[in-house]
Amino acid sequence: MSESLTLSEATDLIEAAEAEAEEMGLKMVIAVANPEGNLIAQHRMDDAWLASVEISRNKAYTAAALQMPTHELAEPSQPGESLWGLQTTDEGRIVVFGGGYPLEADGEIVGTIGVSGGEVEQDMAVASAGVERFEERHA
Amino acid sequence: MSESLTLSEATDLIEAAEAEAEEMGLKMVIAVANPEGNLIAQHRMDDAWLASVEISRNKAYTAAALQMPTHELAEPSQPGESLWGLQTTDEGRIVVFGGGYPLEADGEIVGTIGVSGGEVEQDMAVASAGVERFEERHA
Amino acid sequence: MSESLTLSEATDLIEAAEAEAEEMGLKMVIAVANPEGNLIAQHRMDDAWLASVEISRNKAYTAAALQMPTHELAEPSQPGESLWGLQTTDEGRIVVFGGGYPLEADGEIVGTIGVSGGEVEQDMAVASAGVERFEERHA
Amino acid sequence: MSESLTLSEATDLIEAAEAEAEEMGLKMVIAVANPEGNLIAQHRMDDAWLASVEISRNKAYTAAALQMPTHELAEPSQPGESLWGLQTTDEGRIVVFGGGYPLEADGEIVGTIGVSGGEVEQDMAVASAGVERFEERHA
Repeated sequence: MSESLTLSEATDLIEAAEAEAEEMGLKMVIAVANPEGNLIAQHRMDDAWLASVEISRNKAYTAAALQMPTHELAEPSQPGESLWGLQTTDEGRIVVFGGGYPLEADGEIVGTIGVSGGEVEQDMAVASAGVERFEERHA
Repeated sequence: MSESLTLSEATDLIEAAEAEAEEMGLKMVIAVANPEGNLIAQHRMDDAWLASVEISRNKAYTAAALQMPTHELAEPSQPGESLWGLQTTDEGRIVVFGGGYPLEADGEIVGTIGVSGGEVEQDMAVASAGVERFEERHA
Repeated sequence: MSESLTLSEATDLIEAAEAEAEEMGLKMVIAVANPEGNLIAQHRMDDAWLASVEISRNKAYTAAALQMPTHELAEPSQPGESLWGLQTTDEGRIVVFGGGYPLEADGEIVGTIGVSGGEVEQDMAVASAGVERFEERHA
Repeated sequence: MSESLTLSEATDLIEAAEAEAEEMGLKMVIAVANPEGNLIAQHRMDDAWLASVEISRNKAYTAAALQMPTHELAEPSQPGESLWGLQTTDEGRIVVFGGGYPLEADGEIVGTIGVSGGEVEQDMAVASAGVERFEERHA
């Protein structure tokens, strides 16, 4: 298991994502997990969708469990494609639409971020603000 | 978190939906939940489908958890669309076909209704009778 | 499978139990199931405990699934007794404290009632009001 | 259904609890939920137990679902006592040892806090620091 983000780094990324969501006028749930997919921190913005509590956590889980951004799973899990059926495996924790990203430092995944609460592009934009904060810290 | 429907209001909506189902010759299960997706009341009409017990409850849950009617989820969750895979998230509680509706008063969701037991259009018609009763009460 | 209570009988029992709860100053969740343990109707009185939604449903389930009142399971499920461990079987649906009762007519179980929301003796008293209503109907 | 804590209040309570844990040399997971038991925020301090992610969340859930501190459930759920078996109901979410507390303002529960990561007395002490911060805010 590689090194993990600390709680203090995790809440910093969450705050960057929250700031982006507020600027976009969105209400999101933001989760950060360690490289083993286990939760470090999660914030539900006021009035964000209830379903997003579980979905954001599972986007963070998926990005760790498959070591890739969740939007890359959308195409291979389509009917007729190679990973058709992926989304119902692993006790229902795999999310195959965008908003989950691994956080890499020196070629190692040290954590993941998952965001849910709006349209997929919005989830991705808010999560990306967290990823950018992470990259600034590790630049 | 907004105010919630009372039990007495919930059973009134259920009775309106039941009356509509009877008039249409249908057997339905009808569930009403609070704004956080937790059950207030549920009635299974005689000989209604067993699966509809869980499905109606989850339609009510979904309408609360994503703050929209469940039929609006049908298109974005199709193969190739942006929310493909939504229907298997959140511990299998998300229903992406019609029959679940939020109940709004003064711009706030105060509860939801979910109906299952027939074709989707029938579920929607019966649930709508509950929504109408709600709207009459809040007119 | 024996005959089942109808929805109309079920809501009548629930109303009798609700009336008793109100008289006792209690807030309860009341569930009625058919002889196969599947829900017919459930009402959560305003401000009743959230946990009682699941617990009342499972008391009704248990009374059907083991064909006896749930309080009779308390003693045999104690440490060292013959059914030690019973309460963690059957996907966690077995409740081993009072408040669930089978409803028998002509020696056949035709449904069950489960009540949760207070101390066990209170749950039992409120459920018993439902049982009594049932017995009046079948006297 | 009463009003809920905001995210900003929730993270303030979590920080108060974290500060107490640090002073005591402990690593804890701290969760804050709304009155319907749904998560608002959760922080896992670095190197806190993995099991505590779920346990703290469920302590917060239990304090909402049964409207009382979780340590009050320890005695009635003992073998031979009235609520023996409570701990395995409600899909395994009920925690019957200390560390979960309701947060009340003007006689209404507006949220709950759950802490896990050490001995029960330690969990209770850290959670209490969160409760005290809440009470200062509402004094």
